[in-house]
Amino acid sequence: MIYETIVTTCSAHGEVHIAPFGVQWSNGKVVISPYKPSATLQNILDTRHAVLNLTDDVRIFAAAIAKKSPFATQEIAPGCVRLQDCLTHHVLKLDEMEEDEVRPRLTMTVVESALHGPFMGFNRAQAAVIELAVLVSRLHMLPIEKINQEMQYLQIAIDKTAGERELEAWQWLVDTINNHIARQSGLQQA
Amino acid sequence: MIYETIVTTCSAHGEVHIAPFGVQWSNGKVVISPYKPSATLQNILDTRHAVLNLTDDVRIFAAAIAKKSPFATQEIAPGCVRLQDCLTHHVLKLDEMEEDEVRPRLTMTVVESALHGPFMGFNRAQAAVIELAVLVSRLHMLPIEKINQEMQYLQIAIDKTAGERELEAWQWLVDTINNHIARQSGLQQA
Repeated sequence: MIYETIVTTCSAHGEVHIAPFGVQWSNGKVVISPYKPSATLQNILDTRHAVLNLTDDVRIFAAAIAKKSPFATQEIAPGCVRLQDCLTHHVLKLDEMEEDEVRPRLTMTVVESALHGPFMGFNRAQAAVIELAVLVSRLHMLPIEKINQEMQYLQIAIDKTAGERELEAWQWLVDTINNHIARQSGLQQA
Repeated sequence: MIYETIVTTCSAHGEVHIAPFGVQWSNGKVVISPYKPSATLQNILDTRHAVLNLTDDVRIFAAAIAKKSPFATQEIAPGCVRLQDCLTHHVLKLDEMEEDEVRPRLTMTVVESALHGPFMGFNRAQAAVIELAVLVSRLHMLPIEKINQEMQYLQIAIDKTAGERELEAWQWLVDTINNHIARQSGLQQA
């Protein structure tokens, strides 16, 4: 079972990195498989730590994918930050790493957790933003018709159930798609 | 903004009713619009109370739609029950009712809340089950091709990200759809 979360890490020099991650739980530990190379992987190898942030603010996922300004974080300990606004965070310590050419598998132990807010219920627009974010992260591999078709389907839940945060996140992703389509058709004309 | 939740109510005789509900928050109050007639509406008018349950166990949504055995509840006060397993519950008291021929609008005040568990993150399979549950609740209004097409699309997230609870809920809904399709084609042959 995969949960879509936000992983925050720090570089050896203290630079903060915020990345959406699909994570799994296994025997009470968190398993993540970052791509090689990636800032998240390097930061975890350098600091041995990461923070798993559980948030229902889909703008944070969309901002990372659409390359918007990162959301605010706060320091928990030297080299360890969490999202300022999240519902729960878990501080993770690297336990073991299973090597892989593409995606090494990191098993991490929870060393500290805090609950900041309650689950509000499922929101179909939030789920639609997450789906569109997945699609945008694979934009270069997909035909434009498929992108448009999925976007139209997901738009229904946006129109019916979105709040302001979801509308803002949706728009960032739609802008990213439109820029991609404009570049593609520019390339075809050239 | 609409959240998909589970509303539990009791009849004047103490019978428990569990129903999925899309609810809205307005100025710190919960607004729900049950259909007329419905057990939820009748129960709220009789007892003046309901409980809003926030759960990430999608089986509870699927069970209500697919008419499976109801999930366990526990009494909070006479005439007031909550789901035994949920992440948060809010006890609601009827504040005012705006009449409507089809769906009166009930505004309810939160009189008590308790947080039982943390948000685990977004799970795409949970969202797919919620979408399929919405579709199943409108089955009689939809052409079979549209149902099959949406089911195929949603299946992708199930295959990639579901846990056991999501697979069980998905199967209940798929069975309901297959029964519906079998009945429809039976009718067409007759």
